[in-house]
Amino acid sequence: MSADIAATPPVKDLHFEDFAAGQVFRTPARSVTEDEIIAFASQFDNQPFHVDREAAAASIYGGIIASGFHTLALGFRLVLEAQIVSTASMGSPGLDEVRWLKPMRPGDTIRLELEVTEVIPSRSKPDRGIVKLLYKTFNQNDEVICTMRSMWMLRRRVVVA
Amino acid sequence: MSADIAATPPVKDLHFEDFAAGQVFRTPARSVTEDEIIAFASQFDNQPFHVDREAAAASIYGGIIASGFHTLALGFRLVLEAQIVSTASMGSPGLDEVRWLKPMRPGDTIRLELEVTEVIPSRSKPDRGIVKLLYKTFNQNDEVICTMRSMWMLRRRVVVA
Repeated sequence: MSADIAATPPVKDLHFEDFAAGQVFRTPARSVTEDEIIAFASQFDNQPFHVDREAAAASIYGGIIASGFHTLALGFRLVLEAQIVSTASMGSPGLDEVRWLKPMRPGDTIRLELEVTEVIPSRSKPDRGIVKLLYKTFNQNDEVICTMRSMWMLRRRVVVA
Repeated sequence: MSADIAATPPVKDLHFEDFAAGQVFRTPARSVTEDEIIAFASQFDNQPFHVDREAAAASIYGGIIASGFHTLALGFRLVLEAQIVSTASMGSPGLDEVRWLKPMRPGDTIRLELEVTEVIPSRSKPDRGIVKLLYKTFNQNDEVICTMRSMWMLRRRVVVA
């Protein structure tokens, strides 16, 4: 049996006990426009290479690039759109090793692959556990533009006694 | 001499060579509204405890909380508003140890303290280096709600030969 659940019919609304290290999930893809990049950055990351076309062209990036926080947030939108986790989500305690390897640029179409790296039952709370995931964000050229490790607190479907 | 530069008159537009481990900087504060929290989450993190007042009240959070990505992005806005770094910024390779310790809630007023933990000249590029910072985000009760370590690629004012 392949660990690649995404290759099977869609898997939706998983709970803590459905996860095992080695599983790989894929999200839908989504394109980002220059207007969206500038709108996000104007609000949260108002640096010339994110919001000013001329200044960005003269920068080391050679054109407008998205705020790294936009890349993270849009990626998470796609994770939720995949609906692998929905009712089981109890939020996240954090992220590790966020790496922006290449910029997200206007017109790019991104998608993510999530690999389960660890599954940790809660010691104190029998209704939940932490699933650790390695996120990889790809652009339309299949280049990895961002990686990170996330922790997701997930409810169990069946609470252990 | 105090390492707390924020206690001295404002320090603006610093470059790589102006940083040293142990320096602490403070940002301005900013409040966040429920509308802003819901607007952000509707776009990027459309989970019930971020966007639905009733569902959030029934959740483990007891009310609407901001997306963690919103907490990060709004925090970075405050870092830029402090203008400690402006023209020297060349972007960031990544973040480490992002921890959401407490939620950001509607009406909260947040501010950040940044501590310089390491200053690393580029080996290959004499015009820049990486400044590592420990971010702490506080709410209006001086509770730490989020911590992370960031890397910031900064231009030198004077390029070494």
